Amino acid sequence: MSEAIAFLEPRDAVLSRRREIIEDLSELVPAGRLVHEPTALVPFETDGFIAYRRRPLAVVLPETTEQVAAVMKYCHRYGIPVIPRGAGTSLSGGAIPQEDAVVLGLSAMTRILDIDYANRCAVVQAGVTNLAISEAVGADGYFYAPDPSSQLACTIGGNIAMNSGGAHCLKYGVTTNNLLGVKLVLVDGTIIDLGGKHLDATGYDLLGLVCGSEGQLGIVTEATVRLLAKPEGARPVLFGFDSAEAAGSCVADVIGAGIVPVAIEFMDKPAIEICEAFAKAGYPLDVEALLIVEVEGSEAEMEAMLASIVEIAKRHNVKTVRESQSPTEAALIWKGRKSAFGATGRIADYICMDGTVPLSQLAYVLKKTSEIIDRYGLRVANVFHAGDGNMHPLILYNINDPEDAAKAEAAGMEILKLCVDAGGCLTGEHGVGIEKRDLMRHQFSDVDLDQQMAVRSAFDADWILNPSKVFPLEGRS
Amino acid sequence: MSEAIAFLEPRDAVLSRRREIIEDLSELVPAGRLVHEPTALVPFETDGFIAYRRRPLAVVLPETTEQVAAVMKYCHRYGIPVIPRGAGTSLSGGAIPQEDAVVLGLSAMTRILDIDYANRCAVVQAGVTNLAISEAVGADGYFYAPDPSSQLACTIGGNIAMNSGGAHCLKYGVTTNNLLGVKLVLVDGTIIDLGGKHLDATGYDLLGLVCGSEGQLGIVTEATVRLLAKPEGARPVLFGFDSAEAAGSCVADVIGAGIVPVAIEFMDKPAIEICEAFAKAGYPLDVEALLIVEVEGSEAEMEAMLASIVEIAKRHNVKTVRESQSPTEAALIWKGRKSAFGATGRIADYICMDGTVPLSQLAYVLKKTSEIIDRYGLRVANVFHAGDGNMHPLILYNINDPEDAAKAEAAGMEILKLCVDAGGCLTGEHGVGIEKRDLMRHQFSDVDLDQQMAVRSAFDADWILNPSKVFPLEGRS
Repeated sequence: MSEAIAFLEPRDAVLSRRREIIEDLSELVPAGRLVHEPTALVPFETDGFIAYRRRPLAVVLPETTEQVAAVMKYCHRYGIPVIPRGAGTSLSGGAIPQEDAVVLGLSAMTRILDIDYANRCAVVQAGVTNLAISEAVGADGYFYAPDPSSQLACTIGGNIAMNSGGAHCLKYGVTTNNLLGVKLVLVDGTIIDLGGKHLDATGYDLLGLVCGSEGQLGIVTEATVRLLAKPEGARPVLFGFDSAEAAGSCVADVIGAGIVPVAIEFMDKPAIEICEAFAKAGYPLDVEALLIVEVEGSEAEMEAMLASIVEIAKRHNVKTVRESQSPTEAALIWKGRKSAFGATGRIADYICMDGTVPLSQLAYVLKKTSEIIDRYGLRVANVFHAGDGNMHPLILYNINDPEDAAKAEAAGMEILKLCVDAGGCLTGEHGVGIEKRDLMRHQFSDVDLDQQMAVRSAFDADWILNPSKVFPLEGRS
Repeated sequence: MSEAIAFLEPRDAVLSRRREIIEDLSELVPAGRLVHEPTALVPFETDGFIAYRRRPLAVVLPETTEQVAAVMKYCHRYGIPVIPRGAGTSLSGGAIPQEDAVVLGLSAMTRILDIDYANRCAVVQAGVTNLAISEAVGADGYFYAPDPSSQLACTIGGNIAMNSGGAHCLKYGVTTNNLLGVKLVLVDGTIIDLGGKHLDATGYDLLGLVCGSEGQLGIVTEATVRLLAKPEGARPVLFGFDSAEAAGSCVADVIGAGIVPVAIEFMDKPAIEICEAFAKAGYPLDVEALLIVEVEGSEAEMEAMLASIVEIAKRHNVKTVRESQSPTEAALIWKGRKSAFGATGRIADYICMDGTVPLSQLAYVLKKTSEIIDRYGLRVANVFHAGDGNMHPLILYNINDPEDAAKAEAAGMEILKLCVDAGGCLTGEHGVGIEKRDLMRHQFSDVDLDQQMAVRSAFDADWILNPSKVFPLEGRS
């Protein structure tokens, strides 16, 4: 990919003090929790948005909130940029550092502090992985709902920064709907608590504001998350259609009828072929588009909801309706869907877009996406959270061909603008990061951006937290 | 009640220009939409928190967003405080004006602009009442979920300002969970849009921040709200217990077991008697505490959920379990609950508290509340959203007896502190307003408050929007 996206110029006042800064930091975290040798820094140069990389000044991996606070106090005092990092799975470059920055990694904070079924919540450190929460409570019949595809690796801290979603968020909501409280280290090292085990907030909803703020308002070190009871049963059902438009219209009609299954995932033919080759999930190969619809509850509830959905699907000439016949088959169906990104990566390089559109626009946006891709002479695989209107076109290209890469990037930007113009937005769950930073002007007016930046400044007046991200570099107030 | 709660001193520079301001405002809104005669101003002197009243400088009732913007631009230019007002049903004094302020009433903006079933949402002006939305879509099988007791009168704009809840928010969430977008007039008259018909937000979640900000960040003139499909069936069931503690523990166990009915409402004996006398709802009078549990769905779903709840209730020695036998009876049960405030008002003056606690603390907080009330020699009726942990003790007193009033106020403050100390918060859905402004220091540290005030200043640097509310007057930065 091109080097089109700029980072802020490194601050000379920081670079020139590198050695001193490293020495000072070594006193703030335990032995072995400071990384500064060039080779050791390589893994921290990029994240899931691998097209860009920068080597940071140093990496610290604190073990406690107090150590995080000490690092923030120090960096704030000397104007040193800080890049918070969870598992580094960001698809928008949210954790890519810059040369004058200290990466503040939360990966050593992996303790589950409290499991409280009476209040249906768990308190965990920010470095706990998404899946680890559900694993810790699964035997007791509970789970944590948001389920990004990267849930095996990604951390709750990163989920909060990006307000992550996942396939099952259609019913259960995204991170912000499942977050009750955080412990937040402010830019100057002050530690505050937002929310808690109670519902509702007194005063402004700073908890909601912090969720999705991409590490720019403070460092989350602990989270109180909602636990849900596992449903009695759950069953994914495959619906095959003759066209992507028919599948898209079917989704809009299901949701428009007020039916809310747990998940409605969409795959077009290229995505079906790629995932089936990898997962052998039994996806039908003779259709142009596939919906994975998951229903849950008692046998009777699942049957009733399915009947309503099948009736709507028939109006869109559904070709195949196939229920999973066993837990193994159900697991395979989800394995195929959740490995879509990895499976695509086996056959080509790709960039994954993340626009969200009103459901009534799904079929239109799919059609226009296809036209854009054709015009650039590229290929695309669409695999996304259709019930939420959260699209994920994977644009295939050759990373070693600069011309191809430039085309893919240009097509991706056109597709995101299309989403905005259709009444949607640039990002559902991957965040703005550096990837979509300059497109913010397409979504927002100067007044909008000024207001958002004023809020940011109310937390971080010197803009040292993740400074190259979210807002266009030019025109910052 | 005492005049203990202070308002900001009126700005002389504003008072001295009163005549000129009224003349200027008359050019910004249509004829008949400016109120300034002393007698005509009386209805705007207070709201649902009737213990306090102040006469505003004038009232404007714009009909369009552009007129709201013109008023804000004018008031911003001359530093004139602005008090946004919906239906004036605030229980915390959120709409009580001050002498140097212009009340900006949204009651003339009552148009439903768009009903969009394909995207399951409606776009309405801020002065539309809560119930009017459900009425407009009811025949088509949809409804708007949040249902404050005042839903016949209260407006969606006021609901957004206070992040209002209601009995059915246990399942459906409060206003912030059902709000997709707003049109917001900033303090200087600039008009911006936050959110829209799509899910998810790009950039910071300013929509979530504005929801619950009590009219201090801007004026909401339009809202895009989520519509839900009505359930197949719904049935309230009465559970009577021998003690308030048993009922409270039962609620905690139901929620702790991961069961989420649509509503779990709690009434203690005084509340049962008051409401039964008013509504003749068939509440059992031989119990110490009553839960109204509403289940919904198909007949089979309701039966299954009820069976689980009955099993838990038996462990707490439930004395009475009575299902409503007809739609009329179901409506009566809810009429009794929803008229609790009005029915109480027939027998005594009261103040209604609004603390929220973790569910595991319900029984403890009920017991301690009773001790506090006994110590002051007062009476209390408890009627609240138990499933949310959102308590509403109604403290009965005689408004014409200053000593009694002072006692009631003091007891109320103790109860709210109790909620905070039990891990909860000062307000679930009524807002801070002026009522709980000075208790904010009990919930929050100076650092917490400074951060919230910095966010407020990022929207309204001169603090002209609803300035006497939410934050303690002393120590404002």
